[in-house]
Formats: sequence, structure tokens, C-alpha cells
Amino acid sequence: MMKKATRIAELLAQSEANLGKTARVQGWVRTRRDSKAGISFIELNDGSCLKSVQIIAEHNHQDYQKILSDITTGSSLLVEGTVMPSPGKGQPVEIHASRIVLYGRSDPLTYPLQKKRHSLEFLRQIAHLRPRSNTIGAVTRIRNRLSYAVHQFFQDRGFYYIHTPIITSSDCEGAGEVFRVTTLGPESLLSEQSGSVFENDFFGRPAFLTVSGQLQAEIYALALGKVYTFGPTFRSENSNTSRHLAEFWMIEPEMAFCDLQDDLELAEEFVKHLVRTVLADCSEDLDFFSRFTEPTLFDTLEKTANAPFEIISYTEAVQALKRSGEVFTFPVEWGNDLQAEHERYLTEKLFQKAVAIMDFPRALKPFYMRVNDDEQTVAAMDVLVPSVGEIIGGSQREERRDVLLDQMKLKGISTDDYRWYVELREYGSVPHAGFGVGLERMVQFMTGLPNIREVIPFPRTPGHADF
Amino acid sequence: MMKKATRIAELLAQSEANLGKTARVQGWVRTRRDSKAGISFIELNDGSCLKSVQIIAEHNHQDYQKILSDITTGSSLLVEGTVMPSPGKGQPVEIHASRIVLYGRSDPLTYPLQKKRHSLEFLRQIAHLRPRSNTIGAVTRIRNRLSYAVHQFFQDRGFYYIHTPIITSSDCEGAGEVFRVTTLGPESLLSEQSGSVFENDFFGRPAFLTVSGQLQAEIYALALGKVYTFGPTFRSENSNTSRHLAEFWMIEPEMAFCDLQDDLELAEEFVKHLVRTVLADCSEDLDFFSRFTEPTLFDTLEKTANAPFEIISYTEAVQALKRSGEVFTFPVEWGNDLQAEHERYLTEKLFQKAVAIMDFPRALKPFYMRVNDDEQTVAAMDVLVPSVGEIIGGSQREERRDVLLDQMKLKGISTDDYRWYVELREYGSVPHAGFGVGLERMVQFMTGLPNIREVIPFPRTPGHADF
Repeated sequence: MMKKATRIAELLAQSEANLGKTARVQGWVRTRRDSKAGISFIELNDGSCLKSVQIIAEHNHQDYQKILSDITTGSSLLVEGTVMPSPGKGQPVEIHASRIVLYGRSDPLTYPLQKKRHSLEFLRQIAHLRPRSNTIGAVTRIRNRLSYAVHQFFQDRGFYYIHTPIITSSDCEGAGEVFRVTTLGPESLLSEQSGSVFENDFFGRPAFLTVSGQLQAEIYALALGKVYTFGPTFRSENSNTSRHLAEFWMIEPEMAFCDLQDDLELAEEFVKHLVRTVLADCSEDLDFFSRFTEPTLFDTLEKTANAPFEIISYTEAVQALKRSGEVFTFPVEWGNDLQAEHERYLTEKLFQKAVAIMDFPRALKPFYMRVNDDEQTVAAMDVLVPSVGEIIGGSQREERRDVLLDQMKLKGISTDDYRWYVELREYGSVPHAGFGVGLERMVQFMTGLPNIREVIPFPRTPGHADF
Repeated sequence: MMKKATRIAELLAQSEANLGKTARVQGWVRTRRDSKAGISFIELNDGSCLKSVQIIAEHNHQDYQKILSDITTGSSLLVEGTVMPSPGKGQPVEIHASRIVLYGRSDPLTYPLQKKRHSLEFLRQIAHLRPRSNTIGAVTRIRNRLSYAVHQFFQDRGFYYIHTPIITSSDCEGAGEVFRVTTLGPESLLSEQSGSVFENDFFGRPAFLTVSGQLQAEIYALALGKVYTFGPTFRSENSNTSRHLAEFWMIEPEMAFCDLQDDLELAEEFVKHLVRTVLADCSEDLDFFSRFTEPTLFDTLEKTANAPFEIISYTEAVQALKRSGEVFTFPVEWGNDLQAEHERYLTEKLFQKAVAIMDFPRALKPFYMRVNDDEQTVAAMDVLVPSVGEIIGGSQREERRDVLLDQMKLKGISTDDYRWYVELREYGSVPHAGFGVGLERMVQFMTGLPNIREVIPFPRTPGHADF
């Protein structure tokens, strides 16, 4: 067995109790600086928190004198020593080393992560080392806390976690921007007639990566009442923007015996729960982002946690945009989709907080959304937040078989392919609703990071599937 | 807003407190039976637990008389009524209905899920309705509890949840049984030279579905100390067995400053935590499986929760198999892989409990496992449990750059493709270890279900990607 060490987060959190005691820590050297008096000051970080702990190493100490020259940025150490009050600013304690073990060197001439601040673009190119940076370390801890908070929220409310399929033969949105999954090589494809080629493929038919687990989640909601998914989803959209990823993680609750109002109530509770949890548990990392990325971060998060969401209809939103006096690139007309510029005006300028927009034009939305009594709109909602825009999209689902069949016909959805979906409306149909949340958008909201490629470990975008 | 109802699990758990009070429940009719005295006995289930609640409906009641004929198996209801002590066996209370709302009918002539017991094969064909069966309902609740217990276990111990990529250009095991991900249609592929065809693909190179997140998890362990993945993984193995899926969910913890002994200790703690949690929280569903699927279920689970794992080396395992007197289909020789029949002998007959086998021949295992001092074996472990066989596979990873390069050369792994993996051994390398657990195997272990296709919502196997 290896010797157990204390995590630096715990050591610092209980620094008073640790004073004068012997501690053992393990981690990676962030910086080292030598005094003329023959002492090295080593910043050691183990990823358990943003802060490093300062190690005081005397050059003439016989227990580590020989390895001192190898203690460079990026090298890995075990340090034993006495916890002492630190005269330095911003650190309650430091460790006076009595023993240092060097696990691994790090060549100072080639190690790419030196003390200076690196650009986020540069860090992306070294995705195998960037978790050792302050920014990506903090993103990772916040993303972790958010992910667990998602599970805690739904589990505490009696929802069941469902693993909907990743490989699927259906295409929920009918959007067509899907990745094909195949075991056929180009050679096999070349030797076949293209019409029947997928009969010889692994699944005996065309298969794709899922764009949403919603339709399958409905199956489980209509048996177990309240369920949620939390898994990867995919879009092959060829857009190289700071807002799009080809692979991202989605959370999709789905509830039987639930209408759009209940759905909205849950969405508001959910967003507030996530924000409050991160505010409570990740304050050190949030503080880092508020200092270096987004000065208004705490204001925005605290307002989201505490102020009631503004709730308006799509029709009211269009009216508000028309009388805003703003110059928009995209025209504002009832029946047009709201663009990012419109969403940002509503949430950042007009209301300056989270906004839920309800009841969108039927023609803009997918076949499964419930048609309202006016027959012109559907029971859909979008939740917008400052700096990110749309963070949640949801709807009540069409539970009336005949209306669903009309909608499918109107939107060109095959009733053969979705026979099972229609059957859910033939055998014990109930009103039900749900929503989808992109985890990455939520991490961007919590960190203020403008580019979505920073908030997922290994971003997949056109031309990029490294690591 | 829809009227809020009480979940049946809560109603039954607090049946004493609810006696005499008015309750509102919502769910799907499992059965209905009529007495000559003009009373219907309706079993209503809402998926919150295995049990249904009995509804007593008097035929001449004006508040629902008109819809009584539509209350058939599979139909969906809201019921309000008084909670009364039940004279029936196995149910503490029943609800005397004062009001019934019919949400959706269910044609008794075509609804496939009738009262009689259906075969699991039949249920698989109606995967959109099978969550309404006792078996799949219970599987879903146990799978949910297990999944959450996984997160609780690691979060309580300071691990960070990492979303490793699903689409990847690397192939962890070098096994080659991978699915290709592409946006090229057969037509595009036909019009190109096959050699350069993937230059025009979405990622500009060949891309695949991940077989494991381990290598990428190592990146994060070597920055944040302790991490885990929990996500879908894929194998395109063309085997139609009860043990294989093309898509399944894996949990992979990875720890820096950790050797094989620490790894084993965590694995034992992990398995015991999962078993104890399910024993404590899913007793009704476990009881169902012990009655209808596997009579020894509780014995096996309780022994796993309480008895220390048997720990033997691969070499000792081979010796034990040789002197067992058993007739095996596959020969037992040092250097051969252990087959399912060997594993089952060890865990079910010889030790009759969980067994960890350590230090396998180097030639049998992948390039990343740490070479032991004997140079013939690697620091690998397999954990076996009764009835399932191998449930965990793990290893200490090779942290010594030069030994890793030797292993890669020996196993034919490209040092160009895995340059980043080698660099982790050049910049602050540390001893580290981890393991992988298939969630579906774990659900099988908890339920005794022999076919893996029952324990995932939508099984993907050769020829099957429905729903």
C-alpha cells in the first residue's frame, strides 16, 4: 500500500487544527522560488482545490538535499513536514518539510505549463495537461459539483435515473444533423449497392448517435411517473462557433401527470438548486472566475438563485422586442424564431434576470409538443439566463392520439417508425411534460467562460476528435 | 397546474398515518375484478414501488359511474378517496373511491400487457411497454439506486466525476472492435478514394465510439488526484450471447498516488457499498427477484456485503483449478486466460464468495498495465462474484516512461498516436491505478437476471437498435 496523504483542501480547511502537527501531502509543483538564505518555497497543488500549499524546504536538509534540483514546475512530490503558521499573504499555513520524495521529474525546458498565464486556446491544444491549470481545474470541480447536484435534486424528489440509448434508429427532432454509427468500412460500402448497404451493417439498418433521450424517457415516465436522463447527446452540425459542440451532456427530466405550468415550476426550482449549490460549495473557484473571467458573476448567480423568474408568453416577448427601440440584425415578427440577440435583450437588458418564454408558434416547434387551444401555438417553454441565453427548453407533450397523428402528418414524421410512440397514446395516455438542459451551458453560466470548449474535458468540434 | 397526487410508495409506507384521510393517487390499472355485489377492485400502480394500491369502486357511484367500463388493464386514472384498512392479504390499506378521472383508455383486445406472466423475450419486443411490468419496473428502480449509489460513494470520498469523450480517435484496448462514427453517406464514400476518404469526414480523420474512458481519466487523475467516469461504452463484437451488449454503461475510477493494493481495497469497499445500499433501500424489489428469479439472491448479496473478499494470485488460481478435479472445456495452463467456467468454479464452488485474482501474465493484458518485478506478470486484478463471474477489472498503470515505451513496442501500440499518454510519464508521473465496472453486470448481480438484455432499458445487440 502507498502511504496515505492529506488532501490539500482538507489541510487548508482545518488549518487551525493542523497547526504544529506533522502532515503528509502529495501533488504537483506549481512554482518554486529560492531565497538567498538557502530556502526553497515550493507551491504544491493536488487538484483538491484551487489553492496550493506552500512547502518550505531548507537546502541543507539531508533528507532531500539530493533531489532539490529536480523539484521544478510540473514535477510530482510527496512531502512530510510540520504545519506552521504562514507569514505569507492568503495562506493560513505552510509545511516545513522534513522529508521529500520525488515521484516524477518534469523537464523545465519542455514542460508547456509554466508559471505565466497561458491563453485558453493554447491550453486546448494540450488537453492532456490543461487540467493542471487553475482555469480548467476550477471548471472541473464546478462541473463535478453541478453533475452531482443534478442527481441529488432528482433523487431527492423521487425521480428515477434512466439510461436512454446512445445508438438509436430514431431521430427525435427530425433535424437530420446526426452522426452515423457503422461497422462497415469504406471497402464494404464500396462493394455494395447503396440502397441495401445497411442490411449488412451491425444493426441491420441505419443507426445513429442520439440527439435527445426524450422520446425514450417518455416511455419510462409513462410507467414510473417521474424519470430523468443524464447522458451524452450529439449533433453533427458543421458550425465552428463558441456555442456549439458535436458531443455534449444533456439532462432531461420527464414527468407523467404534469402540465406546462408544473414543468416550469420544476425548471425554476432546478436552476435555483444548481446555482445555490455551486454558490455554497464552490466559492473559491467562483471567486477565481469572478476575478479573472466575469466580474458580474456573483451578482448574476445570486439574482438567479433568489429572484422569481420573469414569465412571459412568446407573443408578449415579440411585442416587447418590437417596442424596445433596439436595432436587431434579425427581424422581429410573430412566427419567427427568437435569435440570440433577442434572447439577450430580454434577459440581460429588459428584465435583467432569468426569463421563461411560453407558448411558441406551432410551426417553429417539433411534432411532439402539445397543441394549445388556439391551435396556433404549442405548450413550449424556453428559459433564458443572462450571458448564456437559452439554458432550458421544454414542453408539455401531445398526449392526445389524434392530435399527435395530425402533427406527425403535418411535420412529415413517419407513423411507422414511431408506431411505439403513438401506442403510448393508445394505452393509458396521460398528460406529461419535461425539459432539456445542456450541462455545458450550465457550466458556462456558473463560470462566465465565453467559449464552450473550455467547459468539457475533450471538446468535439468539426475537425477535432483528439485524445 | 395539475392536481398533486401522493405517490403510492409514500402512501403505503405511511399507511397508519393516512388511515381515514382523503388521498389522491394517479397511475395505471394493473387489474380489475368485479364482485357480484356491484363493487370493482382495481389494482393501481404508479411505478413508485412494486406494490399496487387497491381501489374500491362502487358501481352506482355517481361521480364515476359513466367511465367504469373504460377502466381496463393499462388505462390511466386519477383516484380520490378515503384510505381504509384493507381486509385483503399483503396490503395494509385500500382506497374507497369518491372520484375517478380517466386520463387514457387502453383497448383490452390489443393491449399486450395482460395479467398473465409474460416471458422476458416477449417483453423485450415491447420495450416501450415493458417498464410497466413487475420485472422491468423492479430492474429500473434497482438500476437507479445503484447508479446514484455510485455517485454517492465517489463524491463522499472526494473523487471528481469526469465526462470522458464518447467519440474518440483512440482505441484504448487495441481490440479493434469499435464502431465508426461518420457523417459521410455511402454516396460520398463511393465517390472517394478509400485511403483519404476520412479527410472529408466530420472530424477530418477516422473517429470511433469509445471502448473505455480510462486513458482520458488518467489525464484527470494526474491533475486532480481522484476521479471517476460513469458513461456509455461500446463494443462492436458480433456475439449474440446473454452476456454481451454493443452499448453498456461503465464506471471507471482512477487514482493518483495509488498502487494495486489500494486499488483492490477501494474495489472491495465499492462493491460492498453498492450491495449494502441496495439491500437497505430496495428490499421489496429484491424480494420479488428472490421469489421469481433467483432463490439464493439474499444469501449471495449478504455474504458479499459482509465477508472479506478472497484474494489470490493468478498463479495460485491456476494451481487451485489444476488440483480441483473438475473437468473444464478450456485447458488450465499458466499463461492461458481464465474462462467463465474457471471463474465460476473459483467464486461459486471453491470459495463461495467474491474473489480477487491478482497479477496476471503480462502477455494476456494491455500495454498500460504496470509490469511487476518478475517481468512475467502485471499488476492487474479481476474481481469475480457468484452467478455473474468477472464484475471488476483493474490495474496499476505503468508510470515508468521507459517501461511503458517497451510495453507499447511489444504490443504494437503507436507512440505517435499516444504521444500525450507517454507525456503524462514525462511531466510529473506518479504511481496510479484504477478499475472498471460494468453497470449491467452489477444490476444482474443484484437481480439474478440471467440475460443482460433485461437490465438496460433498450439493449443494443447485433441486428437490434429499435426505439
